[in-house]
Amino acid sequence: MKAIGKIYTDFPEKFGIPRQSGLVKQLEGRIILDPPYNVKEAFDGIEEYSYLWILWQFSECIKSDFSPTVRPPKLGGEKRKGVFATRSPFRPNNIGLSCVKLENVTHTKEYGTVLTVSGIDMKNGTPIYDIKPYIAYADCKPDAKSSFADIHKNDKLTVKINDELKVQIPNNKLSALIGILECDPRPAYQNDESRIYGISFANMNIKFKVSNRILTVTDIEK
Amino acid sequence: MKAIGKIYTDFPEKFGIPRQSGLVKQLEGRIILDPPYNVKEAFDGIEEYSYLWILWQFSECIKSDFSPTVRPPKLGGEKRKGVFATRSPFRPNNIGLSCVKLENVTHTKEYGTVLTVSGIDMKNGTPIYDIKPYIAYADCKPDAKSSFADIHKNDKLTVKINDELKVQIPNNKLSALIGILECDPRPAYQNDESRIYGISFANMNIKFKVSNRILTVTDIEK
Repeated sequence: MKAIGKIYTDFPEKFGIPRQSGLVKQLEGRIILDPPYNVKEAFDGIEEYSYLWILWQFSECIKSDFSPTVRPPKLGGEKRKGVFATRSPFRPNNIGLSCVKLENVTHTKEYGTVLTVSGIDMKNGTPIYDIKPYIAYADCKPDAKSSFADIHKNDKLTVKINDELKVQIPNNKLSALIGILECDPRPAYQNDESRIYGISFANMNIKFKVSNRILTVTDIEK
Repeated sequence: MKAIGKIYTDFPEKFGIPRQSGLVKQLEGRIILDPPYNVKEAFDGIEEYSYLWILWQFSECIKSDFSPTVRPPKLGGEKRKGVFATRSPFRPNNIGLSCVKLENVTHTKEYGTVLTVSGIDMKNGTPIYDIKPYIAYADCKPDAKSSFADIHKNDKLTVKINDELKVQIPNNKLSALIGILECDPRPAYQNDESRIYGISFANMNIKFKVSNRILTVTDIEK
């Protein structure tokens, strides 16, 4: 297995990245493949699909020993579940699977074919193993039961950013940032209301705290 | 990347295997992992999901050189499409992606935890890289546009098996076999009505021919 290219996103660090693809639709990434994979022919017909599967490497989550259980953050980080019953990055083979929307395909002189995709959940520079089209009749299971992922899917925080801070956020990054914060990026449920967290996103460091399910942005550093 | 186990199915050969998962719901497979991955704890909570993603190795489709285009059988084997715009097994990394239904989980003395899944599209003994739960809110895209895969999804053959041959098929394999044949297993559209094809399935070799979109089983060898 070898990386065939990388995805470039607004996340220089792991903290704050949505825990599944598609959670924050405004989050875009650019996929640039290495030669010889970046030729136009290799993408012929890809615009006929609205979604793609990206197989990628959990490059920051490589563990040498196998742990059969993990603690999903959605369960407060206290309950354990079997690794094969979660999408935890700590698994025997470090392959991530994301469903992203194909926004556009451009053919450039410098990089060859470049795909812009949205709904991403990867760090900047994440190595890519494969790109496959999403095939509705095989992949879409509207009857699927998904355990705690279903229960908590509307479990969003309320995000507050005062106007003074808001003007410091580029217009085209604001709704994506709100989407990230609504997902509750904290590592596991923590009730320490005084704790200040920081997310690196789009060349900013966003400081925030959480109290009573309200997330308040306290500062923006550039 | 290393195989963590294998899936056991009724297909000793590649020919006749459905070209996507979920096409023939009756097709079951058993996933048996190697130690240390086959412990009960590693599957804790998996019954809370109705579908699983299986990441596996296209073990019969390893090519050393990269070809940017492939000829999808659904397009008659004549038109070329970019490899990243298809699910062709001939791709830079030989990873297959299948969505299967979880039928049951058993804990055995001999093999540890064994998963029975349905809607499979893998050869007997296919190496498995990973098992992940299907998460409806991230994976189910009912609005997805899927190119020619959509156009041909109801493009089934009519299958005829006379009673004399039908009694030779075990009861619990009959509907799966009809499902396989309806999918038109021929390598690409061929109009040679006299040609006899043979599929190895569940310890039988099923001979058939196709004329005017009617597939007739001509013989069953055991």
